[in-house]
Amino acid sequence: MEIKSGKEIEDMERIKRLNLINSITGISPANLIGTISNDLIENLSIFSSVIHIGSNPPLIGFILRPTKKNRRDTYENIIETNKFTINHINSDMIERSHYTSVKFDKNESEFQKCQFKAEYLNNFQAPYVKESDVKIGLNLEDIQLIKSNGCRLIIGRVERLYAPSSAIHKNGNIQLELLNSVGVSGLNTYYSLNKIAEYPYARVNDPFLKEA
Amino acid sequence: MEIKSGKEIEDMERIKRLNLINSITGISPANLIGTISNDLIENLSIFSSVIHIGSNPPLIGFILRPTKKNRRDTYENIIETNKFTINHINSDMIERSHYTSVKFDKNESEFQKCQFKAEYLNNFQAPYVKESDVKIGLNLEDIQLIKSNGCRLIIGRVERLYAPSSAIHKNGNIQLELLNSVGVSGLNTYYSLNKIAEYPYARVNDPFLKEA
Repeated sequence: MEIKSGKEIEDMERIKRLNLINSITGISPANLIGTISNDLIENLSIFSSVIHIGSNPPLIGFILRPTKKNRRDTYENIIETNKFTINHINSDMIERSHYTSVKFDKNESEFQKCQFKAEYLNNFQAPYVKESDVKIGLNLEDIQLIKSNGCRLIIGRVERLYAPSSAIHKNGNIQLELLNSVGVSGLNTYYSLNKIAEYPYARVNDPFLKEA
Repeated sequence: MEIKSGKEIEDMERIKRLNLINSITGISPANLIGTISNDLIENLSIFSSVIHIGSNPPLIGFILRPTKKNRRDTYENIIETNKFTINHINSDMIERSHYTSVKFDKNESEFQKCQFKAEYLNNFQAPYVKESDVKIGLNLEDIQLIKSNGCRLIIGRVERLYAPSSAIHKNGNIQLELLNSVGVSGLNTYYSLNKIAEYPYARVNDPFLKEA
């Protein structure tokens, strides 16, 4: 496939363009974001746009679609409470997680509809997903409107973290292959992960470069 | 592992925190970003922060670390030329790609140092990576400074796209498993991808939810 102009993309059939542009960036992390409203209505939603922003301070972001046409409970709840959780999807959770993207009514909880258990830990206001192996609790740090298309980059600061110690290397790295954490491509295809390589921090005097 | 406060993260040993916070978001896409300066010095750099922003218009972003302490050739070149390319890393390219993160001198090209071939297609100013199966040419659309830590979200608009037709489903989805595209966790661990599930667009009347 060769696309040689923006016009060719513009002229594509809508669903084909949606799938193509959603999948060309490569694999994305599969996470569930948990929130609760001040009225105590829980919300859970799958996001493939969770991204590392910085480690000191520890900041994680995600992209929220425009709020104009559709109700965005995740967004409303974060605005109300300043809190949200990010929970890894593992291979036993894929189908249930996928269906959190259904447009349920505002007073329906995806936890109940999609058969997940909400879990509250150490007085953190937002619900975690009990079934997830890695659970992160975040405080809202900033919201940046993306002028180009009305999306928002929601940035949270990591305040809590729960993960099996056995899956964390002594250097701090989370070992995804021990957790069955999965990735997602585009809007509906899920992938398991096999570790195939690991390299040290790259330095100019590395043998790899000397041999080159 | 249980972390119950931001203070506990702050107090961690620096490298351990760096690895932990870089890897807790889950798998990330592994891409090379290609640019060229007005003086015709090419640059190539690995990024794990490429993210889908929107499909209409087709926008892709990535996070660029702060420019204060370190020279950021990718950033300087994008400012100069308004153009960059995103190229998928496949399993044959991992080691070479990893070493593009070395701090080379400004007049050294990572293409040459890391043994990649720069490819220029259809008069697009920025270089693609010949070895990559999926190559995307983008125009700079916007730069958003992330106030919380001085990083920038660089947003590009997709203008060109090259990918093997055999790996693109008729619905538009790129089939990563046919491309050997890889993912990266944290700063140095690479994963291959195995497709394990695919679900339709989730609707409220889906049998999965009726059975629940």
